[in-house]
Amino acid sequence: MWMQKEITLAPKARGFHLITREILRQLPELEDMRIGMMNVFLKHTSASLTVNENADPAVRRDFERYFNILVPPNIPGMEHNDEGPDDLPAHLKTGILGSDLNIPISDGRLNLGVWQGIYLCEHRDHGGSRSIVVTMNGA
Amino acid sequence: MWMQKEITLAPKARGFHLITREILRQLPELEDMRIGMMNVFLKHTSASLTVNENADPAVRRDFERYFNILVPPNIPGMEHNDEGPDDLPAHLKTGILGSDLNIPISDGRLNLGVWQGIYLCEHRDHGGSRSIVVTMNGA
Amino acid sequence: MWMQKEITLAPKARGFHLITREILRQLPELEDMRIGMMNVFLKHTSASLTVNENADPAVRRDFERYFNILVPPNIPGMEHNDEGPDDLPAHLKTGILGSDLNIPISDGRLNLGVWQGIYLCEHRDHGGSRSIVVTMNGA
Repeated sequence: MWMQKEITLAPKARGFHLITREILRQLPELEDMRIGMMNVFLKHTSASLTVNENADPAVRRDFERYFNILVPPNIPGMEHNDEGPDDLPAHLKTGILGSDLNIPISDGRLNLGVWQGIYLCEHRDHGGSRSIVVTMNGA
Repeated sequence: MWMQKEITLAPKARGFHLITREILRQLPELEDMRIGMMNVFLKHTSASLTVNENADPAVRRDFERYFNILVPPNIPGMEHNDEGPDDLPAHLKTGILGSDLNIPISDGRLNLGVWQGIYLCEHRDHGGSRSIVVTMNGA
Repeated sequence: MWMQKEITLAPKARGFHLITREILRQLPELEDMRIGMMNVFLKHTSASLTVNENADPAVRRDFERYFNILVPPNIPGMEHNDEGPDDLPAHLKTGILGSDLNIPISDGRLNLGVWQGIYLCEHRDHGGSRSIVVTMNGA
């Protein structure tokens, strides 16, 4: 059984956002799968996806602060600057965090740990809406 | 053909550990697949999974040293500190290294390179046992 | 429907290289899949795979510069140095960037964003040819 759906996420401020519910409410088909996999693929190069702590919003704020230290704007020696100082850092953060997630499906739900949620990591100041492709395969 | 199994890994010290054999000895079903994929998903936000060098234990010790430099304890300006100085760095390292692996299956075995092994990256001082979900799909 | 193929990539200079076309021209089978997933798995521990900007070559040059700052040669306190100063940094960069990609297939093509391409990240000075395993599953 295959299911694939392109989902447009509502525009978000620069930072890390929990989007588990925003995704799941558009995937009623998940309930029908006993065992399988869900792939979430982000079709952009200046935002990324990761799985992390779902309870304390301070963790998401700390992620934004930390990755701004790790990949600051205006690093000496860099060339690409077509769209401003948040442009190249957004590409580099995407390289570090990644663009796709693969989460097991068990008994009609995502088999995440109790503390895990899906983050959209918006690295641009004005990224606008973002598109993901969700592909589910299972039995 | 689908197979899914939740495996509890034995508790490990903080650091990077080769777990290829610990996983494979619990997956005799692998032998029956000619072609397919194995997903390994870690259900935690303060430990991570990666594939790297399987021969020299110094590489795993260097990973622990390097990631402690990259994500040190007590970074100025951070908020989340619920469980001590190894708490937030563990979440950030998990963001950088990732929580899931997807490895091809060929002729009844994982199609890893000669030098590749699966690492459990334990970022907490006392992480305890860790749960992974292994999902195999193939023909 | 399953398809699996091992592909040898032409040797590349140290740096980040767009390989989308080099891979796709060896995968005519892709055209037959309406919906599915492609996994690309790199069988090495000193090179990596990622998806990023496909238009401006300066982005790939900046990636090489940035990751050399993030993981410099000869970090004090490191042990593993079997094959020279580009050896351990190559393993660490692979840990950060990752060894596998999972890209959705839609209507006979990879469902990448307009600006996305597949990068081979060659972290060694003389890495030689690299092997990937491409696994496609779909309907």
